[in-house]
Amino acid sequence: MSIKDFYEEKCIVTGRTTVPMMDSRYKGASTFFRCPMVESLDSCDIALVGVPFDGGVTNRPGARHGPREIRNASSMMRTIHHVTKFDPYSVRRIADVGDVTFSSVYDLEAVAEEIYDFYHALRMENVLPLSAGGDHSITYPILKGLYRDEPFGLVHIDAHTDTWGVHKGSKFHHGAPFRLATDAGLIDPERTIQIGIRGAQNTAEGWEYSLAKGMRVIFMEEFMELGVAGVLREISRVIDNRPAYVSFDVDALDPSFAPGTGTPEVGGISTREALQLLRGLRGLPLVGADVVEVAPPFDSSGNTALVGATLMYELLCLLSESGVKNLKE
Amino acid sequence: MSIKDFYEEKCIVTGRTTVPMMDSRYKGASTFFRCPMVESLDSCDIALVGVPFDGGVTNRPGARHGPREIRNASSMMRTIHHVTKFDPYSVRRIADVGDVTFSSVYDLEAVAEEIYDFYHALRMENVLPLSAGGDHSITYPILKGLYRDEPFGLVHIDAHTDTWGVHKGSKFHHGAPFRLATDAGLIDPERTIQIGIRGAQNTAEGWEYSLAKGMRVIFMEEFMELGVAGVLREISRVIDNRPAYVSFDVDALDPSFAPGTGTPEVGGISTREALQLLRGLRGLPLVGADVVEVAPPFDSSGNTALVGATLMYELLCLLSESGVKNLKE
Amino acid sequence: MSIKDFYEEKCIVTGRTTVPMMDSRYKGASTFFRCPMVESLDSCDIALVGVPFDGGVTNRPGARHGPREIRNASSMMRTIHHVTKFDPYSVRRIADVGDVTFSSVYDLEAVAEEIYDFYHALRMENVLPLSAGGDHSITYPILKGLYRDEPFGLVHIDAHTDTWGVHKGSKFHHGAPFRLATDAGLIDPERTIQIGIRGAQNTAEGWEYSLAKGMRVIFMEEFMELGVAGVLREISRVIDNRPAYVSFDVDALDPSFAPGTGTPEVGGISTREALQLLRGLRGLPLVGADVVEVAPPFDSSGNTALVGATLMYELLCLLSESGVKNLKE
Amino acid sequence: MSIKDFYEEKCIVTGRTTVPMMDSRYKGASTFFRCPMVESLDSCDIALVGVPFDGGVTNRPGARHGPREIRNASSMMRTIHHVTKFDPYSVRRIADVGDVTFSSVYDLEAVAEEIYDFYHALRMENVLPLSAGGDHSITYPILKGLYRDEPFGLVHIDAHTDTWGVHKGSKFHHGAPFRLATDAGLIDPERTIQIGIRGAQNTAEGWEYSLAKGMRVIFMEEFMELGVAGVLREISRVIDNRPAYVSFDVDALDPSFAPGTGTPEVGGISTREALQLLRGLRGLPLVGADVVEVAPPFDSSGNTALVGATLMYELLCLLSESGVKNLKE
Amino acid sequence: MSIKDFYEEKCIVTGRTTVPMMDSRYKGASTFFRCPMVESLDSCDIALVGVPFDGGVTNRPGARHGPREIRNASSMMRTIHHVTKFDPYSVRRIADVGDVTFSSVYDLEAVAEEIYDFYHALRMENVLPLSAGGDHSITYPILKGLYRDEPFGLVHIDAHTDTWGVHKGSKFHHGAPFRLATDAGLIDPERTIQIGIRGAQNTAEGWEYSLAKGMRVIFMEEFMELGVAGVLREISRVIDNRPAYVSFDVDALDPSFAPGTGTPEVGGISTREALQLLRGLRGLPLVGADVVEVAPPFDSSGNTALVGATLMYELLCLLSESGVKNLKE
Amino acid sequence: MSIKDFYEEKCIVTGRTTVPMMDSRYKGASTFFRCPMVESLDSCDIALVGVPFDGGVTNRPGARHGPREIRNASSMMRTIHHVTKFDPYSVRRIADVGDVTFSSVYDLEAVAEEIYDFYHALRMENVLPLSAGGDHSITYPILKGLYRDEPFGLVHIDAHTDTWGVHKGSKFHHGAPFRLATDAGLIDPERTIQIGIRGAQNTAEGWEYSLAKGMRVIFMEEFMELGVAGVLREISRVIDNRPAYVSFDVDALDPSFAPGTGTPEVGGISTREALQLLRGLRGLPLVGADVVEVAPPFDSSGNTALVGATLMYELLCLLSESGVKNLKE
Repeated sequence: MSIKDFYEEKCIVTGRTTVPMMDSRYKGASTFFRCPMVESLDSCDIALVGVPFDGGVTNRPGARHGPREIRNASSMMRTIHHVTKFDPYSVRRIADVGDVTFSSVYDLEAVAEEIYDFYHALRMENVLPLSAGGDHSITYPILKGLYRDEPFGLVHIDAHTDTWGVHKGSKFHHGAPFRLATDAGLIDPERTIQIGIRGAQNTAEGWEYSLAKGMRVIFMEEFMELGVAGVLREISRVIDNRPAYVSFDVDALDPSFAPGTGTPEVGGISTREALQLLRGLRGLPLVGADVVEVAPPFDSSGNTALVGATLMYELLCLLSESGVKNLKE
Repeated sequence: MSIKDFYEEKCIVTGRTTVPMMDSRYKGASTFFRCPMVESLDSCDIALVGVPFDGGVTNRPGARHGPREIRNASSMMRTIHHVTKFDPYSVRRIADVGDVTFSSVYDLEAVAEEIYDFYHALRMENVLPLSAGGDHSITYPILKGLYRDEPFGLVHIDAHTDTWGVHKGSKFHHGAPFRLATDAGLIDPERTIQIGIRGAQNTAEGWEYSLAKGMRVIFMEEFMELGVAGVLREISRVIDNRPAYVSFDVDALDPSFAPGTGTPEVGGISTREALQLLRGLRGLPLVGADVVEVAPPFDSSGNTALVGATLMYELLCLLSESGVKNLKE
Repeated sequence: MSIKDFYEEKCIVTGRTTVPMMDSRYKGASTFFRCPMVESLDSCDIALVGVPFDGGVTNRPGARHGPREIRNASSMMRTIHHVTKFDPYSVRRIADVGDVTFSSVYDLEAVAEEIYDFYHALRMENVLPLSAGGDHSITYPILKGLYRDEPFGLVHIDAHTDTWGVHKGSKFHHGAPFRLATDAGLIDPERTIQIGIRGAQNTAEGWEYSLAKGMRVIFMEEFMELGVAGVLREISRVIDNRPAYVSFDVDALDPSFAPGTGTPEVGGISTREALQLLRGLRGLPLVGADVVEVAPPFDSSGNTALVGATLMYELLCLLSESGVKNLKE
Repeated sequence: MSIKDFYEEKCIVTGRTTVPMMDSRYKGASTFFRCPMVESLDSCDIALVGVPFDGGVTNRPGARHGPREIRNASSMMRTIHHVTKFDPYSVRRIADVGDVTFSSVYDLEAVAEEIYDFYHALRMENVLPLSAGGDHSITYPILKGLYRDEPFGLVHIDAHTDTWGVHKGSKFHHGAPFRLATDAGLIDPERTIQIGIRGAQNTAEGWEYSLAKGMRVIFMEEFMELGVAGVLREISRVIDNRPAYVSFDVDALDPSFAPGTGTPEVGGISTREALQLLRGLRGLPLVGADVVEVAPPFDSSGNTALVGATLMYELLCLLSESGVKNLKE
Repeated sequence: MSIKDFYEEKCIVTGRTTVPMMDSRYKGASTFFRCPMVESLDSCDIALVGVPFDGGVTNRPGARHGPREIRNASSMMRTIHHVTKFDPYSVRRIADVGDVTFSSVYDLEAVAEEIYDFYHALRMENVLPLSAGGDHSITYPILKGLYRDEPFGLVHIDAHTDTWGVHKGSKFHHGAPFRLATDAGLIDPERTIQIGIRGAQNTAEGWEYSLAKGMRVIFMEEFMELGVAGVLREISRVIDNRPAYVSFDVDALDPSFAPGTGTPEVGGISTREALQLLRGLRGLPLVGADVVEVAPPFDSSGNTALVGATLMYELLCLLSESGVKNLKE
Repeated sequence: MSIKDFYEEKCIVTGRTTVPMMDSRYKGASTFFRCPMVESLDSCDIALVGVPFDGGVTNRPGARHGPREIRNASSMMRTIHHVTKFDPYSVRRIADVGDVTFSSVYDLEAVAEEIYDFYHALRMENVLPLSAGGDHSITYPILKGLYRDEPFGLVHIDAHTDTWGVHKGSKFHHGAPFRLATDAGLIDPERTIQIGIRGAQNTAEGWEYSLAKGMRVIFMEEFMELGVAGVLREISRVIDNRPAYVSFDVDALDPSFAPGTGTPEVGGISTREALQLLRGLRGLPLVGADVVEVAPPFDSSGNTALVGATLMYELLCLLSESGVKNLKE
């Protein structure tokens, strides 16, 4: 099947053929970027996944509704990138593979196990995942599922280091995924860079864990000093052009851009900076990426979902252009 | 394929099987009621259709976004009706067949033609349509597409008779479908009942057309006097147990229930009355139904989409239980 | 000048003539009901007035923005009443005469004086006023301005009796206008009826004042028992077909219909009941009317402004059809 | 200490004394009804409690924010009931005792245990609790904490029977409290009445459990037939003037009144009916009450919090006037 | 008549004189900047025009409501510019001349014709227009109406080049005005500069058209590199101090500043940059200007209308200070 | 009592001890930063005060609701500053001392007197105040209450100089506090710096007053040129390391960050700049600070309250670390 055929949809009523992502943006049921939902992973290079879980939050819930609203907003996206003129759909078969299904939603460990199963299956099929959360607790089992032989590098854009310990009785909450991932050897802390950190904390524990493990932590103030270009140099140095994962928590952004999130912190990254950052990752051998913590109930203007979809489009271009080269083609 | 199989979905990643409409309501891409999108009309008894067009409005646009938001809200619906204990999914194969595709969106006649084609194709396959608008101008071509041998009866619930003439240069606007349908012989005005009419008008033209043609027009004040039971008696008398179509404009409802619509009129029907009305149609030989004029940009609380989805669920039960009996089984 | 000419507007650019209130509702600068703003009171039978003042509130301010948002919403209104088929614009020259101007806004007595001056001038010209508040404190100086020879009857629809005494240092606040008006002999308490009263109070003072003075107070619970028909009988009995004023505080309505108000009280009148109530006043010799306490900052759905405009339209029909017969014609 | 002193607050800066609940409603930090937060239960007859937990929801979370927003809205409440002229603060010492503290928030059983501890402690001090949820899962441990010698009667106002079984791995979710309470002997199903039930379900399990156990289940349709007076007769018969608990889930109300809730069902009880219902319980020997499922993130107009506070005020009057007579006085 | 008299308004009731734009900002019916609506173009130098049409959109409609909401927000504007200390009202007679009237709203060509007529009439009277859209399709007929002897220069600030071809059956949609204007010789592409372009596209057609015709296209990324000062240098070079038109599509702005628009693109111009840009145009011989694509239904915070009004105020200063010198004085 | 004990709270029901500001952020009644409300000023170093008054506005009211919503949002704040690692609660006893009580709310002078009394009492106890407005008119009486022997320096961040004269009959409105304070000798204009000034005005009076008195006025355009570092140098020079007060009007911020305010002006300071500005004040001998003009009714996203709380947290760090050294310890 040609790439062109992959994206064509035939109306079962009229027999007319359209490419949904090229049609009127208000039309049709929302899949991610109006990509097809396919019958099998065989025909798919990159999987768009929703992980509708927010049971790991420490404060305001709502991110379980993230995948659906990002899907909805993603119909505002189009195909050819205006800077690179690259069209991911011209070279990759990209499908919406649906959401992770949970048989147990009240038990954080069981949830993590089901997420792990899903991503492990994707890895076994050599399909690169681009995910929409869900709260940040989902990233630990995603990394676990994708793990192969050695720890990944990590580009982590967030207001919080998410390397905290046990909170209110569990270590699987959304402030802990990168401590869990480090402790489990899934990511290499020396090839981990955390960008946009800010906001008061009640203990310095997470900040200290990151530093103690050797992560490169760029607080917001250093971010402003370095500028995006400087930060990109640091990313390049830290990641060292080896396999890496990108995790983008929308609370890295200032709440004027992304109010719809559980733990907003005033004074964050602008979307212009965020887009520049992601574009600056071009060429890195990425193994997957996610956008998390879009919480639609707090997104009265809908802008957070739109921003989330835009970030996913940028990540999709990265994964399509330079994702790790073990894709079936 | 059994009915049960019809609704099952197998995850292409994990191979796990779920029935989406029975799973967590915040999960998955939104189809109408989380019904399957099928490959062919062969396997389908009732088609859920979106008609994302609002180019026929005379005032506030936005109903083009109706199908998507009703789909979204329809994930709040479940299967077994709490009054009748009837489960439409246990007896009918109900599919989301997507939205009508438009190749021309700026020409009201061309749009009407494309809608006609779609519904004509459904009729040729003996599939009953339940549609989400879109503005009310869509109902004229729908009726035209469904027409067989004789005019349908019509149960029309609305604040406006929608039997007006030319407006600002066109007769295909959303205030005119039932004048067009009457003039074209698609509906029988003597088997037409219009319910909930109210709100000042700049001319009496539409009101007079309806009466002159012999439609039974129940203004809101008479509605309150008759009560739902009295109105149902009138419907029964007018429709006469012969094939009929149901068209529900959400502006029939008071704007406290359905603010998200283009031409709200204060003092309308309550949702409790609306649900009673629809349940009272049980047993009528319906040929199709629609819910129109849900305009999400004016629906800040989201309640209009929820109400729209609930009305569609009630109509789905009616169509499943007693829709015209030429379905393939 | 004929009535028809009165409402015509000639475009100064193209010379084309339109009747604004018959044109597209989203077009043009908003006057009340898209009525003309005239050069002189000579050509005017009924004056639509805004009183943008909320300095008299005891709780949530915002009603100063009421006139503008009611004007905006009033473009949704049309001309011919659907029940009576009466068109006020066919018999009366109705103009938007603008807002009361305040030279002092921080001094409640000075404000009252400026409102008085405005309405006194209207009375001297035999023009009937229909006003949009502002908070309820405006009604006392309005009544004072309109007063002629004997106290008016009063139909007062509200959640509160507004017959309270001094609050936080002033007696001119929005909980007091009808005590002031009674004490000043502007209204006859025995020809006063208060409808829709409810909500806990910190003292019984206002309730007791109303009863002690002989006002007919219909609490919400009695309202539900009597029904609208019963309440109308009481109004008829109390007002006795002699000159009366109608004051409608939107907090009489349940906040599901009118959330945009300063002191909402759960469990109020429905808009259907309100419209029936106002229509039931047909034939009363009214000297003026107002709709007050629309507070747009609390009206996220915009429905309160729409309801306010609809109530004003009903009152306009009443004033046009049976307002006191000293109009110049 | 006299009741009057109980409610007085002395400003620590100026020494001025005020009664917060009598002062400007926009002033001060929000406690429930602006009641005092006291140092000891000794001085307290009725405890206002927040239970900020929503980990038991099956669909949309957010009710953890309910207690805070109900507190905020409760400053709109006043003291003397407009129907009964009863002032609960004149006879009872009513205090805001804060929220239940959770050391574990991700484990439903641990949460239930901490809620139990709190209410058990209240019971040991003979303090009657009036609670604001939180999702409905909180009511099972509340009932367990309050239990003394024999099962309570239950007046349960809700769209759902909440007698469902295990969901996604746990039986402690918000659709199950009354099955758990029945199975544990905390409530007597034959003295339980469930009012307002409606909305499609995916299985009939919960409905059937309620009926099988002998609960009196009044579906919405029977509610409309009986009217409030008829329902009150049923309540009276079922409860039999013996100790009972009242649990009010705001989704019993139509979403036009209470949009801010996790599982809205169109076609519900009006606030007028709800107020009449609660007032009709006057005289019952109540052991406590709660208002649950106010989910502020879905309450864009704020009306749900206002309604929640108003329902709590009505329940406070009931508890103050006729709560079980083992209060210390 | 002196300029001072031009802006004075005499209350027809009290005879008091005010200058509306100097009075309380919440007072009075909203005209643009509270300017007078005049009887004739004779007394007018600059015309403020609304063009309430959005039938040309390809995605989300709503801009037909733009003129009214910009009028509303424009009452927040005042007179003396804080940077230049220039007061446009001290030197020009500026009037709100109302909205373009449409006799046909469903036919894009007919609409364009009526817009053309309006602006042609303004040109014949030597009145400079400052317009509020409406969608961007209005600018083509505006330019056509204003055209005299040679093509205008164009400063076009937008996320999209709007030089696309036929879409869904028409070439008169809102993505095409500058292709139409170029093809018709109304603008000189070599004196056209497009600023702020960004966002993926489904074809490169529009971008390529602009470049092929010789327009100076500043994509967002170049904008950030050049900075506002650099962009202004480019504008100066391209426009060459000859007659030019300014068209500002609010989607040029980042949606955090202007969410209320039909096709938002993340990562846009800030309002600070926009104000600097416009101020940098001081001295250019402008023939008119517009602000388009303010779509109030998507503007939940109201900020887009406020920004739109502010941009119009800046443009008004430009037109008043250095608009083309054929004004009647 | 140790600092640690100061912040501990013992549950009166369970006896469990928590530190509210370290507990779940959605829990408990909202005080500022979840600080204790204390019995006496003896145990308090810094007082958090609400001044719920907006009777001094010239345009949109609503700031009376500011203190409550800032309290609500302040529960999102935590303890250890992420830049300085300073924890104000580790060195100061910080208490919420409630709101100023008003016995008269309609008389601006009487209000000012009551505010004066409150702050004078705080000064007499050597307690540093950090206040949440209310409109800006409150700052004049605050300064009057805090005054000791010589005029304070003033760091004033605002879109407006607030040095205007009489408006609509009063000089005590929110556009005048710093003219009143200068005229009364409470602040030293030569040690006053006004930052962020912008927006058209109807007279130049206020701008001219500030300059004539020798204040350092940094209009927004100079702000952009100097950058934060340059502005901080100016602040340092002007304040001269002597006692100063900080007054932050949230309308200094761009309305994309702070829409919820009465007189927004497009093109303002970003929150990143604002945080840098405040952090740059570290070490100044501050005598108090306020954040004013948060108007929740216009804050549909809630971001303004969040920003207000964040600014207060920064000011709290400043006051705790380097407030004037006459605190009792």
